This record gives sequence, structure tokens and C-alpha cells, in this order.
Amino acid sequence: MTKSRAAIILAAGQGTRMKSALAKPLHAVGGRAMLDWTLSLAGGAGVSETVVVWGALSPAVRERAEAAGARTALQDPPQGTGHAVACAKEALAGFEGLAVVLYADTPLIRAETIESVFAALEAGASVAVLGFEADDPTGYGRLVEAGGQLERIVEHKEANEAERAIRLVNSGVLAAPAGLLFDLLSQVTNENAKGEYYLTDIVAIARSRGLSCTVVRGEEGEMLGVNSRADLAAAEAAFQQRMRAHALAGGVTLTAPETVFFSYDTQIASDVTVEPHVVFGPGVSVASGAVIHAFSHLEGARVGPDVSVGPYARLRPGAVLEQGARVGNFVEVKKARLGAGAKANHLTYLGDAEIGAGANIGAGTITCNYDGFFKHTTVIGEGAFIGSNAALVAPVTIGKGAMTASGSVITQDVPDDALALARARQETKPGWAARFRKMMQAKKDKNR
Amino acid sequence: MTKSRAAIILAAGQGTRMKSALAKPLHAVGGRAMLDWTLSLAGGAGVSETVVVWGALSPAVRERAEAAGARTALQDPPQGTGHAVACAKEALAGFEGLAVVLYADTPLIRAETIESVFAALEAGASVAVLGFEADDPTGYGRLVEAGGQLERIVEHKEANEAERAIRLVNSGVLAAPAGLLFDLLSQVTNENAKGEYYLTDIVAIARSRGLSCTVVRGEEGEMLGVNSRADLAAAEAAFQQRMRAHALAGGVTLTAPETVFFSYDTQIASDVTVEPHVVFGPGVSVASGAVIHAFSHLEGARVGPDVSVGPYARLRPGAVLEQGARVGNFVEVKKARLGAGAKANHLTYLGDAEIGAGANIGAGTITCNYDGFFKHTTVIGEGAFIGSNAALVAPVTIGKGAMTASGSVITQDVPDDALALARARQETKPGWAARFRKMMQAKKDKNR
Amino acid sequence: MTKSRAAIILAAGQGTRMKSALAKPLHAVGGRAMLDWTLSLAGGAGVSETVVVWGALSPAVRERAEAAGARTALQDPPQGTGHAVACAKEALAGFEGLAVVLYADTPLIRAETIESVFAALEAGASVAVLGFEADDPTGYGRLVEAGGQLERIVEHKEANEAERAIRLVNSGVLAAPAGLLFDLLSQVTNENAKGEYYLTDIVAIARSRGLSCTVVRGEEGEMLGVNSRADLAAAEAAFQQRMRAHALAGGVTLTAPETVFFSYDTQIASDVTVEPHVVFGPGVSVASGAVIHAFSHLEGARVGPDVSVGPYARLRPGAVLEQGARVGNFVEVKKARLGAGAKANHLTYLGDAEIGAGANIGAGTITCNYDGFFKHTTVIGEGAFIGSNAALVAPVTIGKGAMTASGSVITQDVPDDALALARARQETKPGWAARFRKMMQAKKDKNR
Repeated sequence: MTKSRAAIILAAGQGTRMKSALAKPLHAVGGRAMLDWTLSLAGGAGVSETVVVWGALSPAVRERAEAAGARTALQDPPQGTGHAVACAKEALAGFEGLAVVLYADTPLIRAETIESVFAALEAGASVAVLGFEADDPTGYGRLVEAGGQLERIVEHKEANEAERAIRLVNSGVLAAPAGLLFDLLSQVTNENAKGEYYLTDIVAIARSRGLSCTVVRGEEGEMLGVNSRADLAAAEAAFQQRMRAHALAGGVTLTAPETVFFSYDTQIASDVTVEPHVVFGPGVSVASGAVIHAFSHLEGARVGPDVSVGPYARLRPGAVLEQGARVGNFVEVKKARLGAGAKANHLTYLGDAEIGAGANIGAGTITCNYDGFFKHTTVIGEGAFIGSNAALVAPVTIGKGAMTASGSVITQDVPDDALALARARQETKPGWAARFRKMMQAKKDKNR
Repeated sequence: MTKSRAAIILAAGQGTRMKSALAKPLHAVGGRAMLDWTLSLAGGAGVSETVVVWGALSPAVRERAEAAGARTALQDPPQGTGHAVACAKEALAGFEGLAVVLYADTPLIRAETIESVFAALEAGASVAVLGFEADDPTGYGRLVEAGGQLERIVEHKEANEAERAIRLVNSGVLAAPAGLLFDLLSQVTNENAKGEYYLTDIVAIARSRGLSCTVVRGEEGEMLGVNSRADLAAAEAAFQQRMRAHALAGGVTLTAPETVFFSYDTQIASDVTVEPHVVFGPGVSVASGAVIHAFSHLEGARVGPDVSVGPYARLRPGAVLEQGARVGNFVEVKKARLGAGAKANHLTYLGDAEIGAGANIGAGTITCNYDGFFKHTTVIGEGAFIGSNAALVAPVTIGKGAMTASGSVITQDVPDDALALARARQETKPGWAARFRKMMQAKKDKNR
Repeated sequence: MTKSRAAIILAAGQGTRMKSALAKPLHAVGGRAMLDWTLSLAGGAGVSETVVVWGALSPAVRERAEAAGARTALQDPPQGTGHAVACAKEALAGFEGLAVVLYADTPLIRAETIESVFAALEAGASVAVLGFEADDPTGYGRLVEAGGQLERIVEHKEANEAERAIRLVNSGVLAAPAGLLFDLLSQVTNENAKGEYYLTDIVAIARSRGLSCTVVRGEEGEMLGVNSRADLAAAEAAFQQRMRAHALAGGVTLTAPETVFFSYDTQIASDVTVEPHVVFGPGVSVASGAVIHAFSHLEGARVGPDVSVGPYARLRPGAVLEQGARVGNFVEVKKARLGAGAKANHLTYLGDAEIGAGANIGAGTITCNYDGFFKHTTVIGEGAFIGSNAALVAPVTIGKGAMTASGSVITQDVPDDALALARARQETKPGWAARFRKMMQAKKDKNR
């Protein structure tokens, strides 16, 4: 039986280099806050207990963590990583399994990687540290191994020449049985230049007790830590790279992968085509055969099979497009369902609407869904035909097979198969335009 | 006199790594199916007879080939490349010229390159193979030369260490006199691990007969073969790179070349400016002095000199913009001509329309061109002025110099120089809004 | 006391490789003509007198230079760089300070770099040349140093093998006391292959007089000279790279920096978020907390704190969005102010408008601001509610707290707190749509 698992997520760093009023762990990558990435990482690695360590300046971090069901522990004032982990001790009182230390600013680590850190403990190590071979190890803590054991972790600044030559460096992720972890931490002192308690010191302490410490080797690409907006952009780029490769491998055509942006939960079936310049916000699924044309923006939308979206379509949360539906250019769809084969091809706003199969929504149609206080629903029946430039004043129902005349303002329900008109009769004033032009031209000449 | 030329295009591969219901040769690069790229390549190299070899799973390939005027030959079941070429024998019965073997998944090869392969035959070689120096030859067939002759082609798996060191590899393209080609193929056996007939075996057979075999060296950049969506994206990227370089060399300003996407037939004159984030679908020409602003999407459109397009303009097939016309943001133009200096600057749909020189189309104008069954035409005369938010219900003609009032629904023709109005008289209800707000606010408070 | 400073800007080159009717110095990088970049560079380096040397084919260069307050000198016909500089002599008659030679096709040089060239003169050098270590020096003039002195500049074509090995090359920028500069130039001859007067020859002449010549080392990245559209694109890319890094360092979130394009004067505060695919034209400032959503296009706009822009918003010159305002998809704002918290979320054109705080502009609203001759203003009061699909025919004023009904054409002022309607009554024709469909279907079947 595997032991139960806990995660201690360090999220108390102020992130001053972000130059932000928003706490660093709440900055997003792939449409998800970095804190949520780490919470999800813990879940993916089989963790049942999570403690988020937050700082006094960032109560929003605690709120988010608690909203996600995690426990929290305040670190105030901050006195180093070892101190931060120790702050979680009380929240884990009684927990007797394995604990891993994670960070709310490393959104790219995969659950399999954390799994392999736990596996090292299960295979007998007392302390397991996630390390990687750095292209350029400058600035990283070096992992000093001897005889198959990790002997100690040396900060870059304190490393001697031989140690600096080591390219195997510390990711920060470390795991140990929870009881042992806090026990080792109780021996860590702050007798160093910064006057901080370093988590990394527990390795040498464990070794001095004859305990086994091991390095689990990961990929540098996963370890990127975010300390600045440039780092954040780099993490986003790495995330997008991963998603694009995943989509291509799954049989999606991306004409220009580098111009398409996914969210953490985007789901795209095989034989979907995504043209250049498309943005997927969170909560989107796209079924096979659909084409997402250039310059489209989707969020919280379900796109059915063989649907055509865009160019310049904006699908907002609650948009559901059923098989073969078409949403064209300069069309916004919010909290609206288009039945199979329904079309809204041009310059339209569909909000809070239910649109039947095969209905045709003319160019320039607006659902007037808001009265300044409440939102109201528009229902359009199967096979209905909404003439161009219509305003549909909700709540209103257009019957099945009904038609509305171009340019009408529809304020009352239209029965099935009926035609509704609401527009003025045309008047013509012969010669008026010619006279107007003459007058205006004279005025213009005078103004010169 | 040069001999007549034939091409045998291998298009029977199932392309399983594409994970697609669409046959691989029909996937597009630069807006054109890869099969069409290869058909065009053959034509560009002076080929008069083309045979497309298709597989039983992809009848759509045969259809497309026949629609393009090519002959076709079924390969069923597939038994290797040599077998595929042999399948074309009957379709080329009586042909006595030179034959080249091409592929429907290598869209980047240039006609000049194939021309040089034919030239090698005309210079005396019996068999000419297109090869290239590979950066990484792993996986490619190696071209083993000796004494100026190509002696044999060795598959990577069967190559010995010395052969693996060879960086000159096989592109797959091969040419020979048609009669000789089929004669050599008749000697190829399937006595190998895969039990397939390899086209490449004909080289050693030809040499054993004392025939001259030669390598024509091409550029690796042209040889990219598409086997996956990632390959398809790479081919697209290479194509776009080529088109962008071509446009820049021709005197086009591309502010951000990496964000502009061309089609295979895009024609752009010098002194055109293309801003970032622009997509050219097939069939577009742009004349000198035009500016294509950011976020524009053009397809099947003719853009005249000094025209301004976008930002956010969508030109669909049949859009013709004459000198100095302007199409602005959130405007869609389909099968419509704008005369010299005509303007449609904002939020407009122009479909099936003829718009005279100097006409001004107000913001929010919609041509209501579709009644659910037929499309109808809108004609707008020279110098006409269409007021904003108008619906023009086609078929309808607005005369020269005529005006329509803002917000009108125009259902009847308007004579030259006349004004047409079709809108309701304004009523005002003093204090109504204040009462409404009070009422709604009470309702909202109650709902809380 | 530092000496006064002059710049001689060479802008007479025809730029034939640009293939353009527009003179090369007038092509833009980052939304600003290269000539203006160089004029700004001179200003930034403390220059008080500027002479732009123009060619007879490009009177537009002279016009632009004069409009910017610079003196101009004609070089006609062109006889080399030395001749070009000499053409400025008369325009600088009486000037007794230091002169630097700059170019109207090197938009990336920084003022600090030119400052360091002047500083070399102030530290005692008679001639200072800006050089750089070239990755590939081919084609550049080599800077031959000896004993700490720049001895001469050797053109690539005339360099011997030892000289060609030198990687320190000439940027073209050179400074000397103005009197000395013209004196040295008077000794330069055109006895060379091209029959031209080379500016670079003055170094050897100065050394032969025993004067001190020194090299100021700059960064290759700044020295890019634009001779073709490909160069122009490369300069633009370098400029954008610089701006993106600057924004990130300043605490701006750029989700996808490579898809965001800035202008030379874009000002973005910290804690602004810019989503992918955004274009900033000249004259934009964005205050803290604002979010610029994907596919937005801003020019000449002031975006206040916590404002939300886009996706697909177009802000044109004169757009001012005050705190917390929202401009949504397919909305164009031109010369219009939105007060705090005002909203225009969908498919709207606001031109020449003044919109009060908290006003809500419904979807599909159009300000009809143009009558074909003049522009007119729309005023919308605080807290007003404009119903969807409205046409507001300017000049018109909607009072504070007033409402307009959906689909109305508003031609008269609406008092505070009143409701205005201008739409037709709805009529319903039962069964009409069913009969119409039957008739049209029959017609369609007949046409087949």
C-alpha cells in the first residue's frame, strides 16, 4: 500500500520583480493562475492534503487556496524557505505520510515528475530532491553527490570552484516523510549571510544522521520559475509550445501554430482545422471536422462537429454550436445555443438566446437582451428566418418557420410560420439630395 | 528536340500519421492541396502526361486528379514504391518520352529542380535521382556513388557503418525514359524484410546492365515530406517564409512578415504596405500603393491601386475595390465592386452589390441580399450617400447622387439625386426613464 | 562648458533597393519615419543645429526635414559620402562646435551611443568614429588601429588579407569639430575606382597631420542600416524586441510578446495586461490595471486605469476612455470620450461623441456623425441607456439618465430622464412565411 501524500506549496514570496499589485502566484499561464497550476500538479501526483503557505501581503493567495479546498498557513515575517515549510507543520499535524514541497511559481512541472519524486521515497530514500542538468547552472544551488548519495546542496554564492563546475542543480522540489521533514527542519539554523533558514540545509543534516538522500533527475524545460514578467512570458511560451505539439500530434491542423493560443483546458478533436491568429480562452471544446477560421476568439464555448467559426467570431461563455452550425464574421455569441445547421454569418450579437436547428440569422441582427437591470432570453424556432438588421427585444419568441422583415424591431412574439414586420414606409423626396449638396457645398465654401 | 515528358505522381499512401479522415494528398499548404502542388510542379517542368497513382481508401484523390485533367491508376493493395510506379504502366502505354516519379506529399519542390532532373537524362544519363545533402541523414536512403556514377540506393536500416556516414540522401524523385523505367521495375523483387517492391532497387539493376545513373543535387529545404500534422505545419512555415521573402524582395513593406500569411497565388505589387496580422486566402491581387491594415482577411479579391483595406476588413470572393476605394473596420465585402474612391468604413455588409465611384456607405449598412432562397443585387449609383444603419433590401437600386436617411429600411428604388427615408417619427416620454429605473431597482432589490 | 553640437544627416541616397516611390528616409519603423528617428537621435544627443542633406529625386525629404525645423542642403549630383557631408558646409557656416555625421537609414542607434562619440571628442580626440565588432565583417569598412589610434578606414573591397581579418568595422557615424571636418574633407579626392569622395578618407588625412583619431565601440544590434524591405522588416523586428523587453521590465503582462506591436511612443503603465495579437499605432497611453484584450488596435488613444478594451476593439485618434470604461468587440471609437464606467460592448461606432460616466451604449449603436460635408457631435449624458441597434443622428444630445428604445433612430434631443422611441409598430401576418416558403421553393425547383 502506498503511503498517503501531502504537498506544501510555498506561495508567500512577494514577487517584487513582477512589479505588480497582484500577488505572483495569482498571475496566469495558459489562462490559469500559477497557484492553481501547482494545486492541480499536487492533485495529479496523488496528493490528498495540501497546505498553501502565504505571506501577509497577499491575503488573496489564501482566499484562492481556500476556495480550492486547500489548507493554508501564514508565514509572517518571511525567514527563508526552511521557515516557510516549517510554517505548514501545524496544518499537517497528525499527517503521517509523505510530503513534497512545491512552489506556486513553477507552472510547467508535470505530475509524472512529482510522481517520480514520491517513487524515490517509496523505493527507500529518506529525502528526495528534484534536480536537473542546467544548460547554464549560474545562480542555481548545486547538487553535490558522492557514492550514489546526495550529500548536500550548495548555494551558487557559497560554492567553490569544483562545486560551480557541477551542472546538476536544485529545482527546489523536495520530498520526505512529513514527520522527518519537520524534524530535520528543526535542526536548521539561520547562521548565514542572509540570516535565513534554508530548506536545502536538511540534506546535509539528513546525511549526518546517515539517512539516504537521492536526486531525481527531471527536464530543465519543466523547471522554469517565474520571477518577472519576462519569465511569465517565457513560461507562457513554453506552455503554448507544449499545447501546440499536443494538438498537432492529435491530428489537428494548425496552419500557423505559433499564432494560436490555447488555455490549460482546451480540448480539440482530430481533424479540426485552426487557421492563423486564433485565441482559445478557458473552457473550450471543439469537435471533429470543425473549422476555426482566422482571428477567432473562443472562451467557455462548445463547438460541435463540422461547425464553422469565424473569421472574426467571438464565442463567449455559454456559447454552444451544434453540428454544422455556422458563426461568421463580426459575430458575438454569449450564453446562446445554435441548433444544428443554424447560421449567423455577419455582424450579429446573440446573447441569452436559444436558436433552433436550421434557423438563419440575418446580417446585423441584435438580441436586445439587457434592459439595464436584467437579462432576458430570445427564443428562435427551428427554420426561422430573421431578416437583416433586426433588433429582437427580449424576452421574445420567434416561432418555428417564422420570418421577420429586414430592419424590423421585434418586440412581440411571432407565431410559427408567421411574418412579422416593424418598420416604417419608405418616402421619396425627388431632387432633395441635389439641393442638399448644393446648399452644403456653399456652406463649406463659405467656411473656408 | 527535347523528348516529351511524363510524371507519375505517387498519391496512394494512407498517411495514417496524419490521423485524418481526409487523404493526405488533399491536405493543403498555402491554400492549395498538396496533390495540386505536385500537379502544378509537373506542369511547370514541362510534363504533358500525368498519371496519379491512388489507393483504394482514397477515391477523393482520384476525383481531384481527374478533375485536374490527369490520368489515374489504382494501386490496390499497396506493395511498395516500385509497385506503385509499375501501376502507372498501362496508363502510359504508348508514351515514349521521359518519366519522372513525383510525390503528392512534397509541396516545396520547385519546377527548376525537376527541370534539372530531366536535363540529366537529356545529357545522357539513363536514370537520374534527385538527392540532397541532409543535415541529419538518419532515416533516409543513402546515395552510394562511385566513379561519378550512382551505384545504388541503400535504405537506412540496411546501411553499414560506412554507408551511414554518407550525407547524400535520396529525395525519392527519380527519372528515366518511360520504357526503361518499367523494364527495370519488372526486374525488382520483393525479397526483403517488408516484402515490398522498392523503386530504389532499379538503380543497382540499371548499373548491373552498365547503364549510367546520376545524382542531381537539390536543396534540403525543398525536400520536406509531409507525414504528420507537424510536418504539414513545417511545410506551411517554409512556404510562408518563401512567400514573405519574395514579397519583400519585390518592394512590399511587411511590418511584421512573421504574422502575414499568403496563399500560393497571392500577387502583391511593389509599394504595397501590409501591416501585422493579415491573412491572404487564395485568389488575391493587390495593386501598388494599397495599404492592407492589420487584422484583415482577403480571399478571391482584387484590390486596386491606393486602396485602403481594414483594419478588420474581410474581403470575400468577388470583392473588387477600384482605385482609392476604402473598406474599413468590421466591414465584409462579398461579390461586390466598389468604384474608384467609394467608401465603406464601418460595420457594414456589402454582398452582391455594385457601388459607384465616390459613393459613401454609412456605418452599419447592410445589404439584405438573401431571402432564404435566392441572392439579389443592390446597385448604388456614383456619388450616392447611404446614411448610417441602413438596410438595403435587394433587389434595389439607389440612383446616382441619391441619399438615404440614417436608419432607413430601403425597399424601393431611389431615383438619382432623390432622398429616401423610411423611419419612424420620434416620440419622447418625459420622466419615463426615471420612473423605469425606480421600478426596476425596486424589483432588483426585492429579488436579492 | 561643453561645446555646442551639430548633426549632418545624410538622407540623399536614392534607396533603389527599396523598390519604392517613397524616398527611403521616409519609410517607417515603429510608426515613425527613419528620418524622424535620426532627427530625434540628434536631439537626444544634445544637438542644436541639424542639416539634412537631401537628393534631387526626393524633395519630400527636404519638406519633412524643414517641417521638423532642420536646415537642409541639396546634394546634386551625388558624388559620395564625403561630398554629401561637404554639401552641409554652407548651412553650418559660422557654427564653431562639434559635428557628427548621422544617417537617415539607421533607426536603431541610441542617443547614449552618439553621446559617447561626442564625449570622445571632448576627451581630446580630433576625429571619433563609431565602430563595432561585426559577427560577419564582410562588406564593411575595416577600422585599422595602431598604438591606440585609428589609423585609417579601409573599404572591404580594397582590404588586404590581414585587414579583412579585422572584425572591428565602421558604422559610418563620425564626429569632429565642424571646422576641422570641412577642412579635412577639402583634402579628400575622388581618385578611386568609383570616382567618389569618401568621408572615411579623412581619418588617414587627419593622422597624416598628426591628429588623434579614436574609435568609439558600439553594439552591432544598433547599427543595422536599412537598404531593402527585408532590412526594414529586420529593423522593425529589432525595434519591437526592444519595446517588448521594455514593457516586460516595466511590469506589463504580455501574454505573447511576439504578437504585440508597439509604436515609438507607446506608453504602458505597470500592471497592464496585453493579450495576444494587439497593435499599438502612434500616440497611445495605457494606465495601470487596464486590460487590452486580443485583436485590439489602438492609435492616438488614451486608456485610463482599469479600462477594458476589446477583444476586437478599435480605438482611433481622439479616443479617451476614463477609469473603468469598457469598449468591447467590434467597436470603433474615434474622437470620443467615454466617462468613467461607461460601456460600449458590442458592434458599435462612436465618432465625435462625448459620453457621460456610467452610460450604457447598446449593441449595434451608430453615431451618425457625418452628413457628407461636416462632422457633428453626439452628447450622451451620465447614466444614459442607449437601446440596442440605435442610430443617433448628430448633432444630438441625449440627457442624463435618459433612455432610447431599441432600434430607434434618434434625430431630436432627448431630455434628462426621458425615454425616446422612434420605431414602427409591429405587424404580424399569420401563415405568411409558410406561403412564402412554398412559393419560393416552387420557383427554385422550376429554375433547376
